[in-house]
Amino acid sequence: MLVAGTPRRTISLADDGWSVIVIDQRRLPHAFTTVRLTSVADAAAAIADMTVRGAPLIGATAAYGLALATREDPSDEALDRAHATLLATRPTAVNLRWALDDVRARLRPLSPSARAPAAYARAAAICDEDVEACRAIGEHGRPLVRKLRPGAGPVNVLTHCNAGWLATVDWGTALAPVYAAHAAGVPVHVWVDETRPRNQGASLTAWELGAAGIPHTLIVDNAGGHLMQHGLVDLVIVGSDRTTARGDVCNKIGTYLKALAAQANGVPFYAAVPSSSIDWTIDDGVREIPIEERDAREVTHVAGRDEEGRVRVVQIAPGATAARNWGFDVTPAPLVTAIVTERGVCAATAAGLRGLFSEAA
Amino acid sequence: MLVAGTPRRTISLADDGWSVIVIDQRRLPHAFTTVRLTSVADAAAAIADMTVRGAPLIGATAAYGLALATREDPSDEALDRAHATLLATRPTAVNLRWALDDVRARLRPLSPSARAPAAYARAAAICDEDVEACRAIGEHGRPLVRKLRPGAGPVNVLTHCNAGWLATVDWGTALAPVYAAHAAGVPVHVWVDETRPRNQGASLTAWELGAAGIPHTLIVDNAGGHLMQHGLVDLVIVGSDRTTARGDVCNKIGTYLKALAAQANGVPFYAAVPSSSIDWTIDDGVREIPIEERDAREVTHVAGRDEEGRVRVVQIAPGATAARNWGFDVTPAPLVTAIVTERGVCAATAAGLRGLFSEAA
Repeated sequence: MLVAGTPRRTISLADDGWSVIVIDQRRLPHAFTTVRLTSVADAAAAIADMTVRGAPLIGATAAYGLALATREDPSDEALDRAHATLLATRPTAVNLRWALDDVRARLRPLSPSARAPAAYARAAAICDEDVEACRAIGEHGRPLVRKLRPGAGPVNVLTHCNAGWLATVDWGTALAPVYAAHAAGVPVHVWVDETRPRNQGASLTAWELGAAGIPHTLIVDNAGGHLMQHGLVDLVIVGSDRTTARGDVCNKIGTYLKALAAQANGVPFYAAVPSSSIDWTIDDGVREIPIEERDAREVTHVAGRDEEGRVRVVQIAPGATAARNWGFDVTPAPLVTAIVTERGVCAATAAGLRGLFSEAA
Repeated sequence: MLVAGTPRRTISLADDGWSVIVIDQRRLPHAFTTVRLTSVADAAAAIADMTVRGAPLIGATAAYGLALATREDPSDEALDRAHATLLATRPTAVNLRWALDDVRARLRPLSPSARAPAAYARAAAICDEDVEACRAIGEHGRPLVRKLRPGAGPVNVLTHCNAGWLATVDWGTALAPVYAAHAAGVPVHVWVDETRPRNQGASLTAWELGAAGIPHTLIVDNAGGHLMQHGLVDLVIVGSDRTTARGDVCNKIGTYLKALAAQANGVPFYAAVPSSSIDWTIDDGVREIPIEERDAREVTHVAGRDEEGRVRVVQIAPGATAARNWGFDVTPAPLVTAIVTERGVCAATAAGLRGLFSEAA
């Protein structure tokens, strides 16, 4: 996508040919800056502290993390250690394990001297494959972005969190069909859930839709049910950090509440999912997916820009208030109208997913 | 309730015997201060800018607003003007109209000189009646605060926004049964929705539960579905700004999403409603209740205390971001397990409410 007129990916090799440049997503929307990763520790920290986030981008960063590790020490022991370090960063998104297992399995048979070049090549390929998968999700999802409610005006899409190009290497998952529809001349408007506690809707989705010139309106996470009751949402589309073999969708906390409202009001609810986000080993998302719990401070404190333009953290709760902070929830498959993948659109069922990915299921 | 050991109501007459003291709820939890209202304009401003909020407290403040108006000018014209000014402050809570109509109807037949004393007396009586209604809601609702899920530990109650004593003259509506259960020795723990955009959960409910010594945990509004899926909520209890004759419940935006999650997970969902919050003239809440829309800045900006203890407003979205800000949503009666009133607990149906309030329905 374009940032100030320049095409960018969220992750890329530096001009030195080995270090890795990522956008520092913690500083958006107030500043657009990049961070240079030069070691597996850097890559692990970037994932853990959410410099990078979004399931596909986490996978791509982890792949480059193994490349950085192998460059320093191509031994089996170092490879396993780097794999473990990166895997421990965040528990919920399955792309992390998928990318790490994929890269390690390809390096294992190689001689030590061949490993670093192969790791870089595979990390680059994972990025290119992600871009292609997201582009294809956009094409397959584009026909779903259509007016389903009476009244004039654009197609109203509601999305939660950020599953745009910032969550992937490029194009995005949930937002790819929106970008594709917009590019095809479909008038579209996006309701952007702010997505507490980290406000990825307000800070990332609003920012990238603004940069792309797509009309959008920020709302609190509480508002979606009211909008759907009043016919102001044509469809909901979200990403997924892990989708089970039967189509349960684990995504940013609060997604489930929007799915319930969509079902209650006859609004289609879509999940846009590259196959790298599908965990073929499990069925029951509520019971089987580990849900990350993060620092309570993300709930009790909010970061933003003050009137002088300085970014500050302010506390919204009384000093002694306890808080809990789960990062994701699971939307059971029966609430999901369809899943949009890089191979097409399918029912959120085991048979639906198997029909598109017979080799994996 | 006690504030730093001193019993307080949210609204009371000043020592001068005529001006009105209210807690400035905009400054909680960071400072406990009061504001003195000396005119109908003061009272209207206090309601409109949310110095006071909560349907019952809005009604009580409006009643005192008419008393302040009548003290200055007891004519019919002034009374009607004050009624109109106060009624225009906020559209959704029906207690406002109820209190204004009640006081005006009592003053109309009186001679001008008798009006101010009568207005003050009636405003004081409305406050006392609200305290008594909330106390009775606490008693009737207390048996509902019980363990319904397996596992050790306290009864887990989830509430949205603030329907505690700060929303009323004393005791609260939704929190009255919690206070009553706690006083009766029932171990209770409250999940407090932060309640964006104005964070009444974080700033008011967490503050008053802390002051009362009731264990509680702050969560983002997105978290309730996840908690209910995992058996961590025994019951949901909320207030209501307007309840229709058939039991549709209009409450702070986001309440509806929690009601959907409660139904999907077999968790009882109660609304605690003094009869002054029931609008007997309408049935269909989604179609008939006017939903207040407030300043978009409440969504794009957040207030809190910085590290030096100063309250600041920070902007969380990109500068040009459009936002919409509806204050309430409607939970249709079929999602409401029961309604707790000052006369007892009833089904959220026309027959249920009529059974308790045959004279009004």
